[in-house]
Amino acid sequence: MEQTFEKLDRTSVPELDKILGVPFNVLNDGFVRIIDYMGSDSSIVQAARVSYGKGTKKLREDEGLIRYLVRHHHTSPLEMCEIKLHVRVPMDCWRQWIRHRTASINEYSTRYSLAIDAAQDTKPDAWRLQAKSNRQGSEGFFELDKGKILSAREHELQELARTIYNERIEAGLAREQARKDLPLSTYTEAYWKTNLHNLLHFLALRMDKHAQLEIRTYATTIGSEIVSKWCPMVWEAFKDYQFGAMELSKQEIEIIALLQAGDANGARALAVKFGFLPPDGEKIKFNLERSEIEQKLVLLGIRPPWLES
Amino acid sequence: MEQTFEKLDRTSVPELDKILGVPFNVLNDGFVRIIDYMGSDSSIVQAARVSYGKGTKKLREDEGLIRYLVRHHHTSPLEMCEIKLHVRVPMDCWRQWIRHRTASINEYSTRYSLAIDAAQDTKPDAWRLQAKSNRQGSEGFFELDKGKILSAREHELQELARTIYNERIEAGLAREQARKDLPLSTYTEAYWKTNLHNLLHFLALRMDKHAQLEIRTYATTIGSEIVSKWCPMVWEAFKDYQFGAMELSKQEIEIIALLQAGDANGARALAVKFGFLPPDGEKIKFNLERSEIEQKLVLLGIRPPWLES
Amino acid sequence: MEQTFEKLDRTSVPELDKILGVPFNVLNDGFVRIIDYMGSDSSIVQAARVSYGKGTKKLREDEGLIRYLVRHHHTSPLEMCEIKLHVRVPMDCWRQWIRHRTASINEYSTRYSLAIDAAQDTKPDAWRLQAKSNRQGSEGFFELDKGKILSAREHELQELARTIYNERIEAGLAREQARKDLPLSTYTEAYWKTNLHNLLHFLALRMDKHAQLEIRTYATTIGSEIVSKWCPMVWEAFKDYQFGAMELSKQEIEIIALLQAGDANGARALAVKFGFLPPDGEKIKFNLERSEIEQKLVLLGIRPPWLES
Amino acid sequence: MEQTFEKLDRTSVPELDKILGVPFNVLNDGFVRIIDYMGSDSSIVQAARVSYGKGTKKLREDEGLIRYLVRHHHTSPLEMCEIKLHVRVPMDCWRQWIRHRTASINEYSTRYSLAIDAAQDTKPDAWRLQAKSNRQGSEGFFELDKGKILSAREHELQELARTIYNERIEAGLAREQARKDLPLSTYTEAYWKTNLHNLLHFLALRMDKHAQLEIRTYATTIGSEIVSKWCPMVWEAFKDYQFGAMELSKQEIEIIALLQAGDANGARALAVKFGFLPPDGEKIKFNLERSEIEQKLVLLGIRPPWLES
Repeated sequence: MEQTFEKLDRTSVPELDKILGVPFNVLNDGFVRIIDYMGSDSSIVQAARVSYGKGTKKLREDEGLIRYLVRHHHTSPLEMCEIKLHVRVPMDCWRQWIRHRTASINEYSTRYSLAIDAAQDTKPDAWRLQAKSNRQGSEGFFELDKGKILSAREHELQELARTIYNERIEAGLAREQARKDLPLSTYTEAYWKTNLHNLLHFLALRMDKHAQLEIRTYATTIGSEIVSKWCPMVWEAFKDYQFGAMELSKQEIEIIALLQAGDANGARALAVKFGFLPPDGEKIKFNLERSEIEQKLVLLGIRPPWLES
Repeated sequence: MEQTFEKLDRTSVPELDKILGVPFNVLNDGFVRIIDYMGSDSSIVQAARVSYGKGTKKLREDEGLIRYLVRHHHTSPLEMCEIKLHVRVPMDCWRQWIRHRTASINEYSTRYSLAIDAAQDTKPDAWRLQAKSNRQGSEGFFELDKGKILSAREHELQELARTIYNERIEAGLAREQARKDLPLSTYTEAYWKTNLHNLLHFLALRMDKHAQLEIRTYATTIGSEIVSKWCPMVWEAFKDYQFGAMELSKQEIEIIALLQAGDANGARALAVKFGFLPPDGEKIKFNLERSEIEQKLVLLGIRPPWLES
Repeated sequence: MEQTFEKLDRTSVPELDKILGVPFNVLNDGFVRIIDYMGSDSSIVQAARVSYGKGTKKLREDEGLIRYLVRHHHTSPLEMCEIKLHVRVPMDCWRQWIRHRTASINEYSTRYSLAIDAAQDTKPDAWRLQAKSNRQGSEGFFELDKGKILSAREHELQELARTIYNERIEAGLAREQARKDLPLSTYTEAYWKTNLHNLLHFLALRMDKHAQLEIRTYATTIGSEIVSKWCPMVWEAFKDYQFGAMELSKQEIEIIALLQAGDANGARALAVKFGFLPPDGEKIKFNLERSEIEQKLVLLGIRPPWLES
Repeated sequence: MEQTFEKLDRTSVPELDKILGVPFNVLNDGFVRIIDYMGSDSSIVQAARVSYGKGTKKLREDEGLIRYLVRHHHTSPLEMCEIKLHVRVPMDCWRQWIRHRTASINEYSTRYSLAIDAAQDTKPDAWRLQAKSNRQGSEGFFELDKGKILSAREHELQELARTIYNERIEAGLAREQARKDLPLSTYTEAYWKTNLHNLLHFLALRMDKHAQLEIRTYATTIGSEIVSKWCPMVWEAFKDYQFGAMELSKQEIEIIALLQAGDANGARALAVKFGFLPPDGEKIKFNLERSEIEQKLVLLGIRPPWLES
């Protein structure tokens, strides 16, 4: 071995050190705090370069390398960065959060301690209507009058739940059983630790417009307040190549290529063949995949031929 | 390559095939059903033997090999067996269940569909007192009179929660928001798939006497009704080497060795040195680790010297 | 609970049962055999529908649902399918394979048994030239004359390695040490078990044209011979939405939109701004990301404006 | 929320900071260097206490809590600590290392760069004999005369392998193919990152006397040089409760209890019943599990009754 190694100083990110421990408020009583972290943009570069060995250093600039890694899903160097957050979240939201399995978790125990005396409440102007186009979403808000009634009933339920919880505790009931009827709106707390690759996957899913508003608010806070300071090059690459990217299926590629070649009829025939459109002459009904391709074509500035006047 | 391979028939376990899809009832409205599985005791033997190569087959009997693997924590062959269950569980219990991260899960979505109209209720004789010795457990039951009051209040709360949930749905509130105050006692359903190694880890923790009664009931059902039929050799080995085993720490080994050599004073001195006992002359106070070693010594038929008359 | 459940028959795939245990040959002495499996296209549908609850069944056809899941990366139902393969692979190739961490593995032990007496040899016409454009690839083949020399030298090395291994074993050297100088071309065998989601991820990376030829041959065999029979609907969806798909970055979307709007100068200016092109007037040098966008534009039938005559 | 949070300083371990980047030499040309870390003994305490909530702090001393966690396998707080190592290891040894799946890895790429020009050589006094009692181990060393011959042959093979590798590279062969016959003794390098819980599992298996000498040397170095400084309380607890602990099976507990009760005949009868001993009168043959229990009894200072006179 001819390598010589110098003693290292520990990697740190001064912009992140400034906000260590500081809570970012989310919802009426939740928060996200960064507790600790390991690594930075430069740690990713360092790990990626071990793969490339001696003599290949400095061939690329750091930022170019990071953007290359993110663009090509070479995610293993991103795993070299780790972050630990302290979060306070309604249990309903935590149920979604916890589905991301590649994280280390220590949650506040309502078996060991008294349940946190706080619940997510809903302001009269924050009640959301069931989406019509999408079975699992919401769109728009209730009128204030109706919202006031809903908020009052919410308050009534949360009060009763808390009263009965307290009665049980005072009667000497085991905490593990007393908690059984707590509403899902009750807050819980946890230390949540994950690596940057898994965190970006979490953010991609939970910052998405289809994610439920509550968890989306947490995800957006983590992304824009914390990741953006921790690994700014990765954060930019994530927005360009992952969060803001578009996927085109094999079929969509073929249809676009025909359109670009000026063959609108051929593109239309392909859409029929792929089942996006009914055979000519039949009435066009709603088709989910066609509506998806239409949205993509609009973003690309391409007019779907079946929408021609 | 000189090996020749014959076409295989698929491994099956007739005893398990008989109960495929049949629900085992748990709690007032829960169940566990086995939906599908892969492998058997013999698949474990087959996988273990690939490690040992040709020419070494039949050196051990299958059962001996399986017992050896379990005894020595050679768990990778156990991963070759996979099971898929359909379970119905109160959300409170599911919160514990889901902490086991190495499983595949599809849970019933209350974002997409209406919440299941059932909650775990508690009979008047099933309310448990907070344990005194253990902050996170229960011991004994409430008297029936008190239990009746608790059950009535529970009913009142669950009714109000259901009423308000229905009001919200009828008003057109998004399902994703309507569910926010459901009590943790509400049932959920899931497909839960894991391999035998991870399942045994789940069972070892959740069949344990320190596990909460609710999840313990599920775990015991899975173990005794399903695993015992699926991989009977593994099940026996699990009970002998894992679930029914005892761990002795380095300190405990030293203390026992001194006791066996007839040196009670030496053993006592070690216990002082290790901090289990106060120095001679001081009053003996509760010490958790000493109480643990005492329990082990009792099981082994050895009398702790500090308990002598 | 008002649901009633009938006893189930176990899911099976007759087309797959026919090839259980049958080796598909790969390279000069390797193979892939399917040993067992769990689930099918229909198991995925079943698991996906638990999320959607009662009353929503049959809203979609099975194939449409599977295609929807794959298209939107709703991968958890794909985890409900599991497969176990028996593979024989050169250690060099296995080193890449094993980097996929989410699998269960039992490998032939050269610590316990004699190393497999077979190595991957290379025919004179199969020696590949180092790629020039890509530091980690190959392109084209050596001329036969040179190839013969390379094959002869390969043979010489493999023979010496085998002779010395045998000398060591005969001398009574521990197998764990005797193996230390085996060439990476030596074959190993393993049982390899993974779920369909992770398998598709493996295939997407290893069937890719940038994957090394050897592992690509294994991956292609697994995909086209096994997955295509096991879950044919998933296989088609995988080819359309994952393997044959294209990703467009935020920048690429913007450039295409300008081009479609007829603003070639604007598109060109964007490319300069994003760093794909040098400022006007400077000489255009190689830029990796620009070459990637060019390849995509070609597939879409769009001419990059900077290539205009 | 009534909690107030102060800004935090980042956790650091000065003893570990002193050795950051410094290589610990292993084998003839390998090393282990710590590159970065997250957390400390106190981070584990902090994470464990989130489970216990407000008002329960300071009930236990930190060390007592850590020892409790390790003793009871409450490993989730240990996951809060993360470490990143740079290692240089023979590929043969790396093959074992990589079987630990829960780590993040960036390995030196011999596809992208030239293979490292170093192999693990073996000194004449370091050749080990195949163990007789254990198919997968070694015991004792060769005489020096024989060792010299083995070392000479090793050198010959490693030289030829290197020569042929260089010939291939000079001829323009693709690096991805040139490497195919490298001996397993060739060194590789990697960044290896894992959490403390998984690291202890690695150490428990690889510091064990049954582990192969090479990886045992790495594991021992990591444990005694790095973990002992990083989390000294955990390191002591690990040695007492995990590495130095003993497991007694249900059967062993029963046999010991009978022996303690003075019932040697009963204990002997149990051993027959459990299959450790042949029925009375038959000749006692080797039985692996009996030899295991004998070793444990010796450590506990208990004489197996079947060895009497």
